[in-house]
Amino acid sequence: MANDDSEFQPDGDSVGLVETQFVTLFEAPNQLCLESGVRFGPIQVAYETYGTLSPEKDNAIFVCHALTGDAHVAGWHAGEERKPGWWNDFIGPGKGLDTNRYFVICANVLSGCKGTTGPSSIDPETGKPFGLGFPFITVGDIVKVHSALVTHLGIEKLLAVIGGSLGGMQVLKWAAIFPDQMASVICLAAAAKLSAQGIAFNVVGRRAIFTDPRFNGGEYYDDPEGPRYGLALARMVAHITYLSDVSIEDKFGRRLQHSDQFKYDLDQETEFQIGSYLHYQGKRFVERFDANSYLCLTHAMDYFDLAEEHGSIQQALERSEANFLLASYTSDWLFTTAQSLQIVSALVDGQRNISFVELESSKGHDAFLLEIEPLEQLVRPLLERTRKEIDDRRVAEARIRGDGAMNGGDRVE
Amino acid sequence: MANDDSEFQPDGDSVGLVETQFVTLFEAPNQLCLESGVRFGPIQVAYETYGTLSPEKDNAIFVCHALTGDAHVAGWHAGEERKPGWWNDFIGPGKGLDTNRYFVICANVLSGCKGTTGPSSIDPETGKPFGLGFPFITVGDIVKVHSALVTHLGIEKLLAVIGGSLGGMQVLKWAAIFPDQMASVICLAAAAKLSAQGIAFNVVGRRAIFTDPRFNGGEYYDDPEGPRYGLALARMVAHITYLSDVSIEDKFGRRLQHSDQFKYDLDQETEFQIGSYLHYQGKRFVERFDANSYLCLTHAMDYFDLAEEHGSIQQALERSEANFLLASYTSDWLFTTAQSLQIVSALVDGQRNISFVELESSKGHDAFLLEIEPLEQLVRPLLERTRKEIDDRRVAEARIRGDGAMNGGDRVE
Repeated sequence: MANDDSEFQPDGDSVGLVETQFVTLFEAPNQLCLESGVRFGPIQVAYETYGTLSPEKDNAIFVCHALTGDAHVAGWHAGEERKPGWWNDFIGPGKGLDTNRYFVICANVLSGCKGTTGPSSIDPETGKPFGLGFPFITVGDIVKVHSALVTHLGIEKLLAVIGGSLGGMQVLKWAAIFPDQMASVICLAAAAKLSAQGIAFNVVGRRAIFTDPRFNGGEYYDDPEGPRYGLALARMVAHITYLSDVSIEDKFGRRLQHSDQFKYDLDQETEFQIGSYLHYQGKRFVERFDANSYLCLTHAMDYFDLAEEHGSIQQALERSEANFLLASYTSDWLFTTAQSLQIVSALVDGQRNISFVELESSKGHDAFLLEIEPLEQLVRPLLERTRKEIDDRRVAEARIRGDGAMNGGDRVE
Repeated sequence: MANDDSEFQPDGDSVGLVETQFVTLFEAPNQLCLESGVRFGPIQVAYETYGTLSPEKDNAIFVCHALTGDAHVAGWHAGEERKPGWWNDFIGPGKGLDTNRYFVICANVLSGCKGTTGPSSIDPETGKPFGLGFPFITVGDIVKVHSALVTHLGIEKLLAVIGGSLGGMQVLKWAAIFPDQMASVICLAAAAKLSAQGIAFNVVGRRAIFTDPRFNGGEYYDDPEGPRYGLALARMVAHITYLSDVSIEDKFGRRLQHSDQFKYDLDQETEFQIGSYLHYQGKRFVERFDANSYLCLTHAMDYFDLAEEHGSIQQALERSEANFLLASYTSDWLFTTAQSLQIVSALVDGQRNISFVELESSKGHDAFLLEIEPLEQLVRPLLERTRKEIDDRRVAEARIRGDGAMNGGDRVE
């Protein structure tokens, strides 16, 4: 821990300074069999954990990140990159995912670019980055890596898996293919498949990257610039879909950044505040993300179709005994309430344990990252109830075994 | 007329073979004073007319085209480009705008690229295309050119001006600045200003053009390729906003074009039908449109704000005695019903003659181009009523003058 980071000492409501950890899984001969049929490995996985795993190993929560997220979901990193984790307001001591009580894990997804093996990683066979040679990845493949990490950490059953957007898709797929690995499933602002409109926006984003001359067929890692214009454009168009019309209107209106009208600014698009905001978002994004990863992950998102992959949504989730909690947001037009309700219907028809809430918000798809308080109010009781059920079951099982030492009331946190 | 076009002879419900006409207006010293303060001219205007102007010159209807339209709104052109006008289903003998009864005019907008002076025109001062040197154009400037064309054609008062989208914005502006030049105003799928979200999509489109290396600061007219990738991207993203989510879902679903899964096609984006459709739309668009015109016209659209320009929408339109007809479409999310209702409210508050209908359609913003029958049912009675009012007024005025020769009943069509 660097001395100059002393100012980042943990305070009451932060997990404080954290470090990303790494583990290599799926080494030969135990490579991962991808859904495409390709065998792939070794896979390095970047992950972070916060809080303490209970002796019973029953308090672990896995956070699945969205399209451009990473393992750094809470606390601060030392060194240059001091920005807080992407869900820092939601995860920490006393917060929604209370690290005084729960052991929280988050891992960068397979084919990402923040520490887990992806297109920018070195292909051991060529000694060069995989680039477009990286195999075709699905949401199921991502989940299989997460699942293996959980097993590696010695956790048999997670208290919960939680995620929004592409993270929510992972959560659903996880419940479908490893139904015994979690006691609850929290799926926010997600869907059993992306809408055709959502695919259309991804198509445009990929096209922007592909037609950038510096994309160079995915081999741009020697180029300090790379396909930055294309990637920034992809981010700009995607970013619009994360906001609601109302939130853009409220935040930016149509106000001109400068007072002088009748003047173009094609370089910076500063004429309207929304223009310079998007421009800034695009610019910042290329500093932290890899274009090939963006291609892989949007493809995984577009191809995901829980119903098609398992016959129906109901069939996909029928083996899960978990407590399901779904939430959608009124102004989210990328992952609509109607799409959440398709999953809810299937779970109700399948007589699963399901709670659903449509949360009022003007913040669009990004609401799951921003509207922390209502989320806490939903998640906290679900986690408590689920943990109590686990306790009760353990006590009941101990009684059946005649194991007098077990005492459900005195938990070691 | 070329012999090989004999197959395109007019039939019963088409205006048949048509030709674009050209006129030069605003020659020195009578140049147009643009809203930016710049004096600009001469301006060549490309226009088409169908039907016959009545001796009373009271049956003329001006059609204002949308962002990427042109003067060729009905019938067919001779030669290579045989495709029908962009609103051919709506304009012709016996159709919504019945060319047996009405004289229909449509002109390419100022700064367009289909015959009216625009960035691809030769700047007489340099002998080279204007490019980005083309002056800043507003919706008001576009309307002033249309208005001058109407005067040039010897028409004092139009029976109607009609337009959708950016065409609807022109219609509103026309009613605001030349209120005596039309007897009715038909404004479809439009708004008094573009939403911040709409501006955001335009920002992305412009950015795609600007960052295409072959854009070359707008000087690409010697380059057979030009910024085709950027312009195609701009069209792709805009095209998504013209469709509704339902229409994409219905038309394309998520079906793969090819059966073999787990395979990328970054070049053609053929994995999903919506991908290859958008790709095709982008490709076709660059064959017919100029990137600099696209920049000018999206800017004009973004800057348009009827209320800001005139104090309020009510003030903008209070001098108009025209019959207003507004229509919005249920699934249009680019120009919503709520935006139309803002105009309706202002007209009602201003005690103008106003009819408004929200038409049921799943076709999104494009509905005004596609849902012809409900449009005919709205427009036809309005035109008849308006023309009868003009007749009645003429008869009444003749009576006051004691002009016995005037007979309102026997119209010469």
